[in-house]
Amino acid sequence: MPSSKSPETLEFSDGELILIDQTRLPQELVTLTCRTVEETHDAIQRLVVRGAPAIGIAAAYGVCLAAKSSGASRQDYLDAADHLATSRPTAVNLFWALDRMRATIAATTDETMLHGKLVEEAKKIHEEDREMCKSIGRNGASLLGQSKCVLTHCNAGGLATSMWGTALAPIYHCHQSGQAIEVYADETRPLLQGGRLTAWELSQAGIPVTVLTDSMSGSLLRTGKIDAVIVGADRIAANGDVANKIGTYPLAVLARYHSVPFYVAAPSSTFDLELADGAGIPIEERSRDEVAEPLGVCAVPDAAKVMNPAFDVTPAELVDCLITERGLIPKPDRKKVAEHFGRTLAH
Amino acid sequence: MPSSKSPETLEFSDGELILIDQTRLPQELVTLTCRTVEETHDAIQRLVVRGAPAIGIAAAYGVCLAAKSSGASRQDYLDAADHLATSRPTAVNLFWALDRMRATIAATTDETMLHGKLVEEAKKIHEEDREMCKSIGRNGASLLGQSKCVLTHCNAGGLATSMWGTALAPIYHCHQSGQAIEVYADETRPLLQGGRLTAWELSQAGIPVTVLTDSMSGSLLRTGKIDAVIVGADRIAANGDVANKIGTYPLAVLARYHSVPFYVAAPSSTFDLELADGAGIPIEERSRDEVAEPLGVCAVPDAAKVMNPAFDVTPAELVDCLITERGLIPKPDRKKVAEHFGRTLAH
Repeated sequence: MPSSKSPETLEFSDGELILIDQTRLPQELVTLTCRTVEETHDAIQRLVVRGAPAIGIAAAYGVCLAAKSSGASRQDYLDAADHLATSRPTAVNLFWALDRMRATIAATTDETMLHGKLVEEAKKIHEEDREMCKSIGRNGASLLGQSKCVLTHCNAGGLATSMWGTALAPIYHCHQSGQAIEVYADETRPLLQGGRLTAWELSQAGIPVTVLTDSMSGSLLRTGKIDAVIVGADRIAANGDVANKIGTYPLAVLARYHSVPFYVAAPSSTFDLELADGAGIPIEERSRDEVAEPLGVCAVPDAAKVMNPAFDVTPAELVDCLITERGLIPKPDRKKVAEHFGRTLAH
Repeated sequence: MPSSKSPETLEFSDGELILIDQTRLPQELVTLTCRTVEETHDAIQRLVVRGAPAIGIAAAYGVCLAAKSSGASRQDYLDAADHLATSRPTAVNLFWALDRMRATIAATTDETMLHGKLVEEAKKIHEEDREMCKSIGRNGASLLGQSKCVLTHCNAGGLATSMWGTALAPIYHCHQSGQAIEVYADETRPLLQGGRLTAWELSQAGIPVTVLTDSMSGSLLRTGKIDAVIVGADRIAANGDVANKIGTYPLAVLARYHSVPFYVAAPSSTFDLELADGAGIPIEERSRDEVAEPLGVCAVPDAAKVMNPAFDVTPAELVDCLITERGLIPKPDRKKVAEHFGRTLAH
């Protein structure tokens, strides 16, 4: 990077969406500039930008990129939203952000105003995300209390959002308040977001971090060293079931087995209240080579099959508390989730 | 390989120990020839040859390699045994095999006979291992019954022994008997023995195998598709606690949580009856780069710490059955393990 200041996870400037290329970390810190809807779609699909909240923000800006030098029609923007919705299937924040952009299109009768209104809405989504990170940080920190040692999985930090992240926000909050806190980060195969991204951003912030393979968290939990497990989410159903990065579910089982509290931090936009439970969450199956060729080197013979679900579902009963920007949902169930969002359950 | 026939995991011929170089699989099938004690020590340490029983056999042959063209003294052989004992700390079969070689040295009064006697003893250990594999295969198959789908971790197959292996022996037995059986193999980070070795040897044998990352076995078990989990062991304490490849313990917890039987297959030489329980088993901590640089590519920033225990300990209460060449030890405890070996417990 030419600048000495670290770039933002994502920035929108002069009609360009500038992303930290997360596929290149920790080896090099470089940005990728998206100038078209297609480039944004590709960046989301290739995980240049990832993490449920960041995907939503990127997609919102992506809709704005439908504007050519000649301008764009209402239909162009709608087509852009439809196309971006196909980039990843699981993170519900993507569809939530695109719905807000569609609503803006519908609400703007003067087509010449459309581009300005859409950029304004995308920036609003982005700004709300920053506020969300701070609130989750505060709410989660109240739960962590004097915890000294936290285990996390994948990356639900600043690189997954616009600022502090979700799962890592309470950790940043504690660190900023002067509390000694250290993090164990599962490397998170197949794409190693824990080793590559969580370890990178926490190190940058001066928070001690130790990387372990996903297979080591069981015996680490058994030592009694871990005060809490905290992860993010890609979609949360109305009953509190959580879809998150593959490996989250076994971690929840292991945390329960060792009586270590298991927390999930996510903004309201991650909740899919139309979905009764986790069984209805579509799970993205990604390509063979992510498993068979880690970091580009063949590690599975061609004759063997491979499975590669990107996410798993953790049932609500294994979640000790959901943390949102609005507050906490301890021992989540259908009723408590509905109440948290001010809804009344139909009986 | 010039020969169309697949090489053996390890062979001793004309005073040379020839090993399949397991660090190169599945990309290429090449052998490494050890001509000295030091080369054998290095091959064990670098995991060219690995798997508790195979380490024992390799070390036994390694002692024979103390013989120079000028012959070797009793002390040379004893020094070789002492040195080879430092190559890996956890697998007890290593010490067991070296103790047999030391006993042979002690029992051979005529020094000119030493080399011949030692080669004879090493070949006997090797041959017994083949018989052990067949017996474990038969005993384990009786336990698997009509199981169609088995999950395993790491490699406790032919590459870890001289023939069928331990955990994979019942699977080879079922396959040879015409029973349809398929295997899910955890890739087993950090060194990927599941993806590289188990998948390779099962594919060679025509047994269907699917590789998954270690983080996926939780949700796989949740599907109900897996009939049994079967793994090997590096050391088993007198109460039935099992040290095995890191990631075994969480798998045992997950198997129990999903009511899937968890079996451990190992020869008698893996039992350390002097050790009361698993707490006393030394756990090898391996180098940072195995975690931080998977397959040689940097995936963890320098500022982050790394942990890399090679093994974990699974308490006996999570083991549904131990399988040895002598038979089965269901729900193992101190009394049953002692009885299995014809010992009477001191009270």
